[in-house]
Amino acid sequence: MASWVLRSFLTSNNFRNGVFHIKRRAHINTRIIDVFKLQPFGSHLSIKGWVKAMRKMKDNIFIDVNDGSCSDKLQVLIPKSKRPESLTYGAAIEAAGSLVMNKNGQIELAAEDVTVVGPCIVLDGYPFAPRKSYPSDYLRQYLHLRPRTNIFGALLRVRDRASCAINEHLHNNGYIHIHTPILTSNDCEGAGEVFRVKPDSENMLKEMAKEGLPLDEAYFDSKAFLTVSGQLHLEAVVRGLSKVYTFGPTFRAENSRTRLHLAEFYMIEAEAAFIESLDELVKIMECMIKDVSKQIMEDCTDDVQILHSSDGNEGSIMSVLEKPFQVMTYDQAINILEKHSGNFTSQARTGQGLSKEHELYLVKHAGDCPVFVIDWPHDIKPFYMKQCVHDSSKVSAVDLLVPRVGELCGGSLREDNLSQLQDKLTKLGLHEVLEWYLELRKYGNVPSGGFGMGFERYLQLILGIPNIKDTIPFPRWPHNCKL
Amino acid sequence: MASWVLRSFLTSNNFRNGVFHIKRRAHINTRIIDVFKLQPFGSHLSIKGWVKAMRKMKDNIFIDVNDGSCSDKLQVLIPKSKRPESLTYGAAIEAAGSLVMNKNGQIELAAEDVTVVGPCIVLDGYPFAPRKSYPSDYLRQYLHLRPRTNIFGALLRVRDRASCAINEHLHNNGYIHIHTPILTSNDCEGAGEVFRVKPDSENMLKEMAKEGLPLDEAYFDSKAFLTVSGQLHLEAVVRGLSKVYTFGPTFRAENSRTRLHLAEFYMIEAEAAFIESLDELVKIMECMIKDVSKQIMEDCTDDVQILHSSDGNEGSIMSVLEKPFQVMTYDQAINILEKHSGNFTSQARTGQGLSKEHELYLVKHAGDCPVFVIDWPHDIKPFYMKQCVHDSSKVSAVDLLVPRVGELCGGSLREDNLSQLQDKLTKLGLHEVLEWYLELRKYGNVPSGGFGMGFERYLQLILGIPNIKDTIPFPRWPHNCKL
Repeated sequence: MASWVLRSFLTSNNFRNGVFHIKRRAHINTRIIDVFKLQPFGSHLSIKGWVKAMRKMKDNIFIDVNDGSCSDKLQVLIPKSKRPESLTYGAAIEAAGSLVMNKNGQIELAAEDVTVVGPCIVLDGYPFAPRKSYPSDYLRQYLHLRPRTNIFGALLRVRDRASCAINEHLHNNGYIHIHTPILTSNDCEGAGEVFRVKPDSENMLKEMAKEGLPLDEAYFDSKAFLTVSGQLHLEAVVRGLSKVYTFGPTFRAENSRTRLHLAEFYMIEAEAAFIESLDELVKIMECMIKDVSKQIMEDCTDDVQILHSSDGNEGSIMSVLEKPFQVMTYDQAINILEKHSGNFTSQARTGQGLSKEHELYLVKHAGDCPVFVIDWPHDIKPFYMKQCVHDSSKVSAVDLLVPRVGELCGGSLREDNLSQLQDKLTKLGLHEVLEWYLELRKYGNVPSGGFGMGFERYLQLILGIPNIKDTIPFPRWPHNCKL
Repeated sequence: MASWVLRSFLTSNNFRNGVFHIKRRAHINTRIIDVFKLQPFGSHLSIKGWVKAMRKMKDNIFIDVNDGSCSDKLQVLIPKSKRPESLTYGAAIEAAGSLVMNKNGQIELAAEDVTVVGPCIVLDGYPFAPRKSYPSDYLRQYLHLRPRTNIFGALLRVRDRASCAINEHLHNNGYIHIHTPILTSNDCEGAGEVFRVKPDSENMLKEMAKEGLPLDEAYFDSKAFLTVSGQLHLEAVVRGLSKVYTFGPTFRAENSRTRLHLAEFYMIEAEAAFIESLDELVKIMECMIKDVSKQIMEDCTDDVQILHSSDGNEGSIMSVLEKPFQVMTYDQAINILEKHSGNFTSQARTGQGLSKEHELYLVKHAGDCPVFVIDWPHDIKPFYMKQCVHDSSKVSAVDLLVPRVGELCGGSLREDNLSQLQDKLTKLGLHEVLEWYLELRKYGNVPSGGFGMGFERYLQLILGIPNIKDTIPFPRWPHNCKL
């Protein structure tokens, strides 16, 4: 018996002194996932869930019930005479009876009793009908009811499993989870695309005001912003713990209304000390993505299939993720794009970033395989990236490009040369505000490197979800912050 | 061999075709935690970490090295002749040699080679000296260097293990992790103690402006706030998935400068459908706290001991947490407080909340045992709490009070009576903005209940940490948002 099943038995109070005590006719409340895994035929049990569909036959009613513990629905059979009055599609019910295998070989609950726990006033505006699937932009209008649909239930379970798998993978490899701050006084990375935070109460600001400080900085004695990355904070902690990561909400105040952008999204950022080459970093990234994806596909087979039902592609994405990822330099990438310039609406130019169509083209050109692009121009990357040894116009940075979404991860070695970093920060006028960051290099410095991966884009990749807004329970994007 | 050890071997590239290949004189890079667990005497290995202390003897130098993977320091022995120039306290080093047991029975790395990866300019302001411990408010001045200290390294490892243990416990009990939103348009719970969020760029707001909307609402078409609780969102999801939880950052714009308050803190909030009594809820809370605490004490024995080194109390807290928690009604609590009124600077009055001194007194009165206080006056609790069946002036709410911190958790059954909830929200003027919340009751409603637990207060409880600012890597509180 799997340990999780045992545990659910233990918690249902029928296990005492090492012995199972299942009272005759006692209705043990059981999750539907456990009904299907355990199949305790003949035993009396009760389930609680929502009516997903109903069929009335001559003497009996067949009710499909789901409780969200898995995508499967349990068929409940009840004699017509015992039908409760408010039993409709959408209602929450409790059904008690015995578990049988019916003549079609299906598991069925032959119910003695069905109680409606909460009716569903279907005719007064309930937006879903039984056995119907809806386009994702329709579902997005009902964020509060969307988790009841089959497809979004599957998404939420896979999202949960994916975050577990990421945590497990990183822990197994010695990383320690750090809650980097959401509020920060540092906006030097965001370059204007940050959210400002202050108390809503004007009175509180007045009460806390100090001479010489603008009123709207009174709460923290400084401006406060929502984090765009936990990397700089991780760089502080990694110089004590060697391997650390953060996995939390991240914010961009961009006016990007694309299928790949959110104002609030989740990011995994990992940082390791004593890393001296991009090679090592690239291996860490590839290994994490492959291991985590394998875990998800193994643990969530049914839910992944439901999410791929529209594109039928889950096989192909796994075969993509099993290939060795490719590595090319930025210069090689530009060469390829220049050779195939006829394919683009705007041309790739050396010294500039890549557009989405360039990113996706490079992936296609590699045979639909993920591609690491390394050694980027110094001028278009942030100050903390390490200058390449062989070419001072380049930095040791890496972007991972993947099918469907383009850029999935970005990473780099960090500049660990104190005087070079000092010069850079002085030029940017950041040497005072980032004095603490310089001190990380002054005291017991190490070479370090790390990367960030957008969690929702990763879900888009492995689940074939076109719009990022359908990968997160409550999406926030320009002009939208519902609920 | 424990599976994590095996894994660390597998990832160090010495395991091929099911066989360990340890080359003679090859220096396998090994984490210090693995050195102590594996004790591969005689093998050649290298370690990387920071110098925590040095002792010079006649011919040799003894270096204590720590890499943050555990609290233990590995003693590295090197002949004086091989001492690298910049080897000082605080430096990052790599040491390679063979593992031996010395004549005192200690594990020791007899180094052939020590390289300074990064020196530490100790004399130019490094705030820590070897073998010295510092008061926590001194360490708090150096948030970027604090993770290097023995005590804060221990805290970060325990914090990591505690969040894993909470995730594991909830998953084992069928709960699904939901990322409830950080940004929300809903401020009805916060009552003025919320943070407002808007893009920092005035130009972006102008670009996105719409007629009839205030300029500072242009980004989301509404005001946006930082979440004070994910509960209402969980109540939406629980009506599809039955058991859900969230574990993320939460915000309060209060001007509270106590040892128990932060502006940004972490909260675990769990919600379960089909819960019909406070009894069930109380059991879920007690079971989680006991299970998680046991896990932490088992897995982090050394680190917990380091954190308790100042109060020597870790034994007593576990004995507290092993007792059955007590349950009393609010009325009983008030009775006790009135009988012992001589103990308080301000008196407890029926119909009002409890102050910190009242909370701590009730715990003491119960024999230093955690106490659930149930059935609170309707008038001092939020709108979503369910009216008690036996007394309409009360709601089915519960606070868990514990030693040292007072209130640790708050929970309730949720009002599931549609018309009562409608009346309440209409009186509060919230029926329009919370129309969606009412719809949760209109369609397939269920009785539900849940609770929230402050993660940092929990760490204070089990680790005996007086100030909450010392339980989180980068604390934010009034007048402080450093880094």
